[in-house]
Formats: sequence, C-alpha cells, structure tokens
Amino acid sequence: MALFSRMSREELLVAEAKLLEKYNAFKAKSMQLDMSRGKPAPAQLNLSNGILSMPIDNYINCEGIDVRNYGILNGILECRQLFADLLDIPIDNIIIGGNSSLNLIYDAFTRLYIFGSLGSTPWGKLDKVKILCPVPGYDRHFAICEELGFEMINIPMSESGPDMDMVEMLAAKDPAVKGILCVPLYSNPDGICYSDETVERLAKMPTAAEDFKIFWDNAYAVHHVYKEVKLRNIFDACKQYGTEDRILYFFSTSKITFPGSGVALVASGDRYIEDIRRRFGKQTIGYSKVNQLETYNFFRTPDNVKAHMKKLGNLLKSKFNIVLEKLDSEFKDTDLLKWHKPMGGYFISVYTMDGCARETVRLAKEAGLTLTGAGASYPYGVDPRDSNIRIAPSYPDEEELKQAMDLFCICVKLAAVKKLLEK
Amino acid sequence: MALFSRMSREELLVAEAKLLEKYNAFKAKSMQLDMSRGKPAPAQLNLSNGILSMPIDNYINCEGIDVRNYGILNGILECRQLFADLLDIPIDNIIIGGNSSLNLIYDAFTRLYIFGSLGSTPWGKLDKVKILCPVPGYDRHFAICEELGFEMINIPMSESGPDMDMVEMLAAKDPAVKGILCVPLYSNPDGICYSDETVERLAKMPTAAEDFKIFWDNAYAVHHVYKEVKLRNIFDACKQYGTEDRILYFFSTSKITFPGSGVALVASGDRYIEDIRRRFGKQTIGYSKVNQLETYNFFRTPDNVKAHMKKLGNLLKSKFNIVLEKLDSEFKDTDLLKWHKPMGGYFISVYTMDGCARETVRLAKEAGLTLTGAGASYPYGVDPRDSNIRIAPSYPDEEELKQAMDLFCICVKLAAVKKLLEK
Repeated sequence: MALFSRMSREELLVAEAKLLEKYNAFKAKSMQLDMSRGKPAPAQLNLSNGILSMPIDNYINCEGIDVRNYGILNGILECRQLFADLLDIPIDNIIIGGNSSLNLIYDAFTRLYIFGSLGSTPWGKLDKVKILCPVPGYDRHFAICEELGFEMINIPMSESGPDMDMVEMLAAKDPAVKGILCVPLYSNPDGICYSDETVERLAKMPTAAEDFKIFWDNAYAVHHVYKEVKLRNIFDACKQYGTEDRILYFFSTSKITFPGSGVALVASGDRYIEDIRRRFGKQTIGYSKVNQLETYNFFRTPDNVKAHMKKLGNLLKSKFNIVLEKLDSEFKDTDLLKWHKPMGGYFISVYTMDGCARETVRLAKEAGLTLTGAGASYPYGVDPRDSNIRIAPSYPDEEELKQAMDLFCICVKLAAVKKLLEK
Repeated sequence: MALFSRMSREELLVAEAKLLEKYNAFKAKSMQLDMSRGKPAPAQLNLSNGILSMPIDNYINCEGIDVRNYGILNGILECRQLFADLLDIPIDNIIIGGNSSLNLIYDAFTRLYIFGSLGSTPWGKLDKVKILCPVPGYDRHFAICEELGFEMINIPMSESGPDMDMVEMLAAKDPAVKGILCVPLYSNPDGICYSDETVERLAKMPTAAEDFKIFWDNAYAVHHVYKEVKLRNIFDACKQYGTEDRILYFFSTSKITFPGSGVALVASGDRYIEDIRRRFGKQTIGYSKVNQLETYNFFRTPDNVKAHMKKLGNLLKSKFNIVLEKLDSEFKDTDLLKWHKPMGGYFISVYTMDGCARETVRLAKEAGLTLTGAGASYPYGVDPRDSNIRIAPSYPDEEELKQAMDLFCICVKLAAVKKLLEK
C-alpha cells in the first residue's frame, strides 16, 4: 500500500473516505467482541477438564499428611517438588500460596509497605518509594504500585529487556528506588525475553537501597509458542553475587490449567523466604492443599506440564499466526504500525504512529471491538507517545479473530489518516 | 473428692504422692497426643469426601459464566446466595474470597492499616491503634494485631459476651480504640454466645473513632452441638442505627467441609463492602470459582448444610460428652477447675486455680499430651491469672480422648497441690 506520509492532502482525503466506507460497513455488522484481557479460549481450558473429573481417592500426601485437614503452610511437598523441577528453583525457597500470583505480588508489596524487609524501614514509613517499571508492562502491576502510592519510573524496553544502563544508574544512586517489576520471559505485552546479560546485570548491580527487590513475575515461564526461549536462571545468577534475597519470584498455573483456580507460588532467597514464611504464619493457617494435590495429580511430572503446554501453545499459535499474518500483509514496511514478533506468552503488542493509539482503540470500540485500553500498559495509564496497543488474541475463535483484525487494521489506518490531516 | 484448699500440709503431701504415682504411670505409657488445635477428626472430614469425588460436569454457572476462566471478583452468584440464605445476610454485601477467613481478617486489618476506611486516616499512620479483645479469645486474631503493632486491651467475658459497659466506655471516649474482635457464637475458646442485648449494644454504641470496626468472626455460625443458639443478626441490628459499615463479617467452610480447602467470605455495609471490592480489584483478578462451584454443588441449599452440620455436631457431641463428664466427675463443686458448658463450637475452656495453667500444660506435655499453650487465648500470650486452658477435643478418637482427659485431670490436681504447697 501507498505510504500515507507521502500523500498529499487530497490523496489523504480520498483514502479517508474509502476507509470510512469500510469502517461503517463493519459498524453496521454490530459486532460484539472483547479482546481486552488475556483470557484463555474454551478450547484451551478444555485441555485441563481432567482436573474437574479426576477424583482424589488418596488424600494422604507423600509426607503422610491428610490434605483435607489443617497444616503445611509451605504447600505440599510433591507440588513444591513439581514446580521446583519445572522452574529449576530450589524447593526450600518455594512457598505455594493460594490461587493467584497477582495476589502474592500484592501481598509482597503490602508486606514491604508494612514491615520492610529483614529489618529495613517499612516502605510505608518512607517519604518516597520509587519502583522501576519497564514499559510497556503489565497494567495490574502498575495498579498495585499506584494504590500504595509508590512512584513509578518508566524504563524503556529493548529486544533484550529493560534498558539496563538506566536501571543500574537509578538503582545505584537513589535509595528511594526500591524495586523493579519484571515479566522476564515473553513479557506482557511485548513478548520480549530478557537476555542472559540482562539477568546477570540485575543480579549483580549495586543498589542504594539495601532492601531492593526484583519482582520476577515469571508468568509465562513455560508458555512457548513458536520456540522455547531459555531464560537465565535468576537464582543461579544471584547466588553468584550473594543477592538472592532481592529476588521475589512469582509463578502460577492460571494460564496452564484454569485462571484463578490453580495454584501460585512465591520464591526468594534463604533469608527472605524465611521472613515471608513467618509472616504468612500470621496471615493464614494454610492455602488449599486439595487444590495443590489436584494440580499435582493432573501433572505429576515436569514433562507432562511441558507436553500440556505444547498443546496449549499450538492452539495459541494459530491465533498468533492470524494476527501476525494480517499485520504483515497490511503494515509490513510501513510507518503506520510496528510490532515485535513474540516467541511465546499471550500477547502481541503493536505501536501506531505517535498520537494514534487512543483514537485507534476508540474507533474499534465504537464498531464493537473492545481492545485493552490505550495507555493501559504504562504507569498511570499514560503512554507518553500514545502509541502502544496490546492485542490479546487468545479468547476469540479464529473466525472472530479474523474479523477483529480486519476491523483493527482499518482503525489503525483511519486514525493515522486523521492524524496526518490534522497537521 | 476432698477439697485441697481445706487440707493440711501433711494431707497435701500425701495427695501429691498419690497423684505423682498416677502421673508417672501415664508417663511410662509414652503417649503422644496433640490436642493443641481445633482440628476436625478424620471421621468428620469423611462426611465431605463427596466433594473430592464429585466431578464438575457443568462449569457454566447460573449466570452463564465459565467458572474455569477469569472473572467475577465477588464470587459466583449461587454460592453467594447459598451463604446469604444460610447466614441471613444481604447477598449484595457479601464477597466470597479465597480459602481462609483468617486471611480475610488479616487482609481487613492490613487494608485498614494502609488505607483507613472510607476516607479516614490509615491506621498505620496513627501513633496508637487500640483493639478491644474479649478474653479469653482466639490466638490467631491476637497474633495479627501484635504483628501490626496494635495495642490490645483485654475485655472480660461474661455469659452474655464481652463486658459491654467497659466496651462502650472505651469506644466512646478514646478515638484510638478502633475495633473489637468478636467470635459471637460459641466463642473460641469459651463457647459463649453473645446475647441479643450485647449485639444490640455493639450496633448502637457511639464510638469516638469514626472508622470503628466490629470484627465479627462468625466462625461457628452453624456449628451447633447440644442445641441451636440463635444469634441476633448484626446486620439487622446495625441497620437500625445506621452503623452497618462498622461490620466486618467473616465466615468460612473450613469447619464445615475441609479446613483451608473450602471457601471464606467477608461482608460489610453498603459503602464499606464497595470499598473492599474496589481494593480487592487491585489485589487479585478473582478467587477460585471452581472451589466455589464445588462447594455449592455439594450443598445446594441451606437445609443441606444444616443437615450436614447435624452429623458433624453429633460426632463432636460424643467428644464433648467425654470431656464434660470427666470434668464433672472429677471437679464438680471443687475450687480446682471451673468451666463453661458450650452448646456448640469446637472447644471447651477450663479455668484452673490461679497460677496453675502453665504448670498443668507443662505437666501434660511432659507426659506426652500437647495442649494449647497456657496463655494462648490472651493477647501477647499473657493470661493475667494464669488460669485458662483451651481443650480441643475434636481430633483424637474417643479412646485417646478418654486417656488424655484422665491424664489432664491428674495434671490439674498435681499443679494445684504443688501450688498450695508453695504457700
């Protein structure tokens, strides 16, 4: 297609008229499609239905503990072992906690707010707490920081992860900089994987705050789609530099089995996990061991989890293909839209011309397609360039997704033409 | 038996020698029994095994929502309706949250610590926060307050609940008094039920703190054993005085189905539950709806819950009978031990002669019987009279329980004789 930026005003007006015609034809269809969140499709969930029908006929676990009764704050041993092996993190440093890694992240932040870490001043008692936020990132992380009044600092992302020069500089010089929010593998939304060097530098960097934390939300640890990208093990990296207690590692089965009905875990260094365990002891008597045993019984081995994720990944791959092929065919080598091709995860993240994301999302919404709000992937909902849009292709079926992408591409162009005509 | 207090020193020495003989005979048996916590017995848990084997064959709930996927922060409608009907509280004021009411209580306290309530100053920003603690009470409540640095004030319990003259006076005059911890029906550990007047006065009393909260842990709402005591509905009472937002109502199925693997709920007035819901929205995407549907499917109606509780109550009744008959036969009309006969709940709470509880528990432990630590039912673990001991008879089988009670009675007497000999 012709490049809009080289068009005359007259040519743009003609282009706009054509696009409006197509757009209005879509509007007339009264489509109603919600692609705002990374929800698994029913076909993905069906792969885990075995959990719903598999009875627990032996409720005594491998430690001889009745999972129906009180006890075991840490989580049952077989479940911890499964995840320790799957993620290659030390079993003693894992606590299985509840149904939601987001809740564990929230708990981690409120714990630091109220108690600090290993004797440090509680973050809530400080005048200022700053959290480094690689952008674009996960809106729900940012919402927690905003709720707690922590100042968020945007850190640009590159193909190898956050801008580590900037991270190192800020962490080293400012004691108010207390942490960094990371989705290190197939990041939400860009699908970027942190390079070995990035992980190494996070582990190694000096921090002015003695209680600096790396919020390592490894949400997509086994969520490969096109190929399996290897992530440098943060525990190994930190061990080398004696910084394990800065790790706050999170993982859940929400996008493996059923969102919100699986199990989540938190892991940290020897000293800090002990502190968390002690505080969890005030917070609860224990998390659901029946859920833990169900999850364990369904998988039993890391290989079975990986085989299951292969099937899930294949389902997602056909959705990703639809999106990427459409983007390629419409926008390859144009200045209207850029994107990063993710190798896994749940999202495809695109960049419109500056100042066009909100309008694109608004146009889509008006024609019946709800996208993630423009700006949602940035702290305070503010995308400085108004450019990023997160596409969550997992939920719709393939036919709907094709329709949605057709409409989306029209909206991207229409917003761009309007922008160019404003000049 | 002869009253120790009227014995001469010589008679006491003879009595001590006889008791020591019996005590040592017990010690020789090398009994190992843990009665420290209110754990259900396997026979009680077996009554809920249906949950483990009942497949979920329809995962679309009554609202048309796929419980396997994200969504519904409040909890699924049928589950909320079940508990609204069972507890006679308004459905719109209920949020089903997680597996543990203790965790919801902890969350409630930390939320108040960080955010205050409906615009009030966050409790963590105040110099002093005081919580009224009817004693004896639930150790895990006290542990949360201690963890957060809230000062706990002992409030004596009578047969009708906490000393309301004292509660009203403290709440009215001191703005640092921010709340009261209540287990209003079959209180832990005494099994006392709040009278209608007590509930009424809690609802009606003026409080110097605008954000005063009643932590209403109705843990034993349907846990009748000898008879069903009716508790005045706190929502009705508060409605009358426009004080619904001071209610923080908690309930769980931990002692109905499986401890820690069921569902818990929090309820409050219209304004405050909305505030909680909004903050939960930052904390999690949602709690396990699969658990909620499992729980609902197992019961379906309040009548089924009540029928199930009848069976559980009968199992507990035989345990309660063993304890109470033994206490009657050994200590009735003596000054060695007093107790309140509970009509339901999980515990029997006894009062030794002043200064004898720790020694009694120590003696029992040394002979292989672990009781709840003396003092545990008081803030900071300090029973000012060193008198109260909580007996948790649910877990051991009847034979073990009889043995344990034989030993317990010997320990009570031995500690008393020693005490009297000290004088």
